[in-house]
Amino acid sequence: MKHNHIKLLNMKQNVPNITSALNTFRIETLEDGVFAIAMTLLVLNLKIPETTDQSVFHSIVKIWPNLLTFFGSFLLLGVYWFGHRTALHYIKNADHTFHWLGILILMFVSIVPFSASMIANYYHDQGAIILYGLNLITISLTMYWQWYYATSGYRLIDKDLPAYVIRFAKNRFIFAPIAYLLAICFSLVNSVIPLILYTILPVFYILPFFVQVWEKIAKYQVSRRSHRQSSI
Amino acid sequence: MKHNHIKLLNMKQNVPNITSALNTFRIETLEDGVFAIAMTLLVLNLKIPETTDQSVFHSIVKIWPNLLTFFGSFLLLGVYWFGHRTALHYIKNADHTFHWLGILILMFVSIVPFSASMIANYYHDQGAIILYGLNLITISLTMYWQWYYATSGYRLIDKDLPAYVIRFAKNRFIFAPIAYLLAICFSLVNSVIPLILYTILPVFYILPFFVQVWEKIAKYQVSRRSHRQSSI
Amino acid sequence: MKHNHIKLLNMKQNVPNITSALNTFRIETLEDGVFAIAMTLLVLNLKIPETTDQSVFHSIVKIWPNLLTFFGSFLLLGVYWFGHRTALHYIKNADHTFHWLGILILMFVSIVPFSASMIANYYHDQGAIILYGLNLITISLTMYWQWYYATSGYRLIDKDLPAYVIRFAKNRFIFAPIAYLLAICFSLVNSVIPLILYTILPVFYILPFFVQVWEKIAKYQVSRRSHRQSSI
Amino acid sequence: MKHNHIKLLNMKQNVPNITSALNTFRIETLEDGVFAIAMTLLVLNLKIPETTDQSVFHSIVKIWPNLLTFFGSFLLLGVYWFGHRTALHYIKNADHTFHWLGILILMFVSIVPFSASMIANYYHDQGAIILYGLNLITISLTMYWQWYYATSGYRLIDKDLPAYVIRFAKNRFIFAPIAYLLAICFSLVNSVIPLILYTILPVFYILPFFVQVWEKIAKYQVSRRSHRQSSI
Repeated sequence: MKHNHIKLLNMKQNVPNITSALNTFRIETLEDGVFAIAMTLLVLNLKIPETTDQSVFHSIVKIWPNLLTFFGSFLLLGVYWFGHRTALHYIKNADHTFHWLGILILMFVSIVPFSASMIANYYHDQGAIILYGLNLITISLTMYWQWYYATSGYRLIDKDLPAYVIRFAKNRFIFAPIAYLLAICFSLVNSVIPLILYTILPVFYILPFFVQVWEKIAKYQVSRRSHRQSSI
Repeated sequence: MKHNHIKLLNMKQNVPNITSALNTFRIETLEDGVFAIAMTLLVLNLKIPETTDQSVFHSIVKIWPNLLTFFGSFLLLGVYWFGHRTALHYIKNADHTFHWLGILILMFVSIVPFSASMIANYYHDQGAIILYGLNLITISLTMYWQWYYATSGYRLIDKDLPAYVIRFAKNRFIFAPIAYLLAICFSLVNSVIPLILYTILPVFYILPFFVQVWEKIAKYQVSRRSHRQSSI
Repeated sequence: MKHNHIKLLNMKQNVPNITSALNTFRIETLEDGVFAIAMTLLVLNLKIPETTDQSVFHSIVKIWPNLLTFFGSFLLLGVYWFGHRTALHYIKNADHTFHWLGILILMFVSIVPFSASMIANYYHDQGAIILYGLNLITISLTMYWQWYYATSGYRLIDKDLPAYVIRFAKNRFIFAPIAYLLAICFSLVNSVIPLILYTILPVFYILPFFVQVWEKIAKYQVSRRSHRQSSI
Repeated sequence: MKHNHIKLLNMKQNVPNITSALNTFRIETLEDGVFAIAMTLLVLNLKIPETTDQSVFHSIVKIWPNLLTFFGSFLLLGVYWFGHRTALHYIKNADHTFHWLGILILMFVSIVPFSASMIANYYHDQGAIILYGLNLITISLTMYWQWYYATSGYRLIDKDLPAYVIRFAKNRFIFAPIAYLLAICFSLVNSVIPLILYTILPVFYILPFFVQVWEKIAKYQVSRRSHRQSSI
């Protein structure tokens, strides 16, 4: 709401150029919808095996790969949602290209329940591990692309946005695909290490301690660059 | 948000005439919900064939018609969502008829996952190709109808909205059904050409280059008409 | 949005009494979500019978009860959504009871896909017809109850809201259950008449002509009552 | 909307510190989406047993545990939604930790349709009763944690918020898990008492009479504490 109000002041009413700025409100609502559904559809991968001779506890223990995938994938989608939500906070308005990059992101998000069901049922299969990783990489890279498009030349953001905020978001969008690529490489020799990598990755985005680390890194990168430029 | 605020100033509080203007906020939220769900339900058409003797990669390759349908239908729904979202940007308020045309649009949108599952499983069947095309045509024509209703006599839009913006949206709503009709005709002699048409259609709506082409065409049409009128 | 802004002015910040007025924004978003999902889940009742010896056209024709139920139930949910959306337009703020009546409404709305699948598969069964009708009656009556609660003594609406607007909404909320009750009675002797009643009912809410009729009736009722009161 | 506007005034634009305050708008939309979907997915647990020799009425009666679970779980989710919605009304802005506690809440909410299907099909099984209770306890405790985080030291709320409002919400978030724990204990000796406890619990949150009781208790607790402090 906040930034929508600010945008309101920045924008002329009924802009003649059709392809120019719309606000981000509708794409945000669509995004919240797609994320909410993708997150909740993950639960459909949970099914109790119909065995009447066992207690429910035993049945639940037996579907541990599905449970692990549910919690892991939910948190990963949470990481993406919160990362993108924070990025959109700084976007003043949204043009044609920005909207379509957003729709691409949602396309890759909405396929996650399928990739997750694949890795839950075939977690020992190299193909399932690689495809799950590739799915997550496409989300990350499209988010990076959209953020790059919006911030290069301050196209859709305020001119006074500190450089390290832009850097911070870029780092976070590009870190995950590197980790996934590593997981995919490990999958060639071992099927447990990639699963561990997928599971612990959210930690680096969720724990408040790491947020401060990310912020310090971004500030350091920006200060080093400005230092280098001023010394020339 | 933007146009909602502007509407706020244009509208009297608690208008005595019940059938007169409501704002477009609620129908937009409902629309974002229906689109988000229809888009995400498409993923339910993706199912890995349960064959334990094959790697997941081979299974994925075997369901290529389902994957193509998923990505194609998602992008087509994206085209519809973004087209309608842009059109609604210019709508000041929404009356009884406008709301109901909107609900009709959503009815045809919500049936897309069914049409898509049909064409994914029976892509060689002429009937599936035709019904998929008819489904998309009904969405397009209802959107055209709603836009025609809202803009004729500046019923629900601002009087100072440039004529070429109205033309631009009309062209885009009417172009798709013509392409689908063509696809349906081709389906009588060949089952591959229609599928290609369905797949490449989004390109004309998504690539920024084509947006400029659409805009030039709309401006040319409007200028030619005003020229003709002034020469009389 | 409109009425939310107005409410903003009417309400004190951080009201001491917890059970007093919240705004209606969140319950409206939840409602749009539940309606969007219930409407889109209706499509899951559509399944093509897997027969390889038939064309898709023949298969589609064979599931006509499911198709009729899909379109009919979608339009009925549209009637409920639009009726409630219009009613909420006049609600200034929402207290504990108002919220809970709203959640009850959504509970009965979310069960519609189940009732619809029942009548689609067992449309010749009296029980299915009655349960479908009872489901719709509970939605109508809870909406009536909520509207009655909000408007009696101008509890949650503006004091200057014309009496015929209140009457108009009450009439529309109470008309449907009467028609459904009639359908249930007919189901005892005939299984086609109830289905026709369910199918044509939306017409009286959707066609703009009937909206004017409803409005005239409400105005007449109000004027007659005020006439009677002044003549005493 | 109300509190979002107020926040607008309280917050500086494009705050340098990335981890500092965002508004609560987006997490609220996501929450409404997840709750709407979880509530509506409950209906997928309702399936008519396919027996052609029975009337639909008889089939419906036979799935009474599923129906009871549907209505009971829907009302419980309603209790959680409304409790959290009321709490968020008082939150001025949302930081990193607040967002992530919110995502955790939604994770436990989105798994409810699974727990509900488990208890509906295995209501006589102690494991199903315990897991259903544990699911509800995790939602309650995470909500309590988030509220505690937001209110301790007036971190994310207004300084002038009366102490009894904070107490009121805390009591309500902590009461449910105690009842669930009791239900789990009873499940060791009896499988009916826990089901009764799950079913009647919503009553204490829904009936307006009990809201006043909760409010009086919170006021009493606060007054007693301030009395004790002033007497020292």
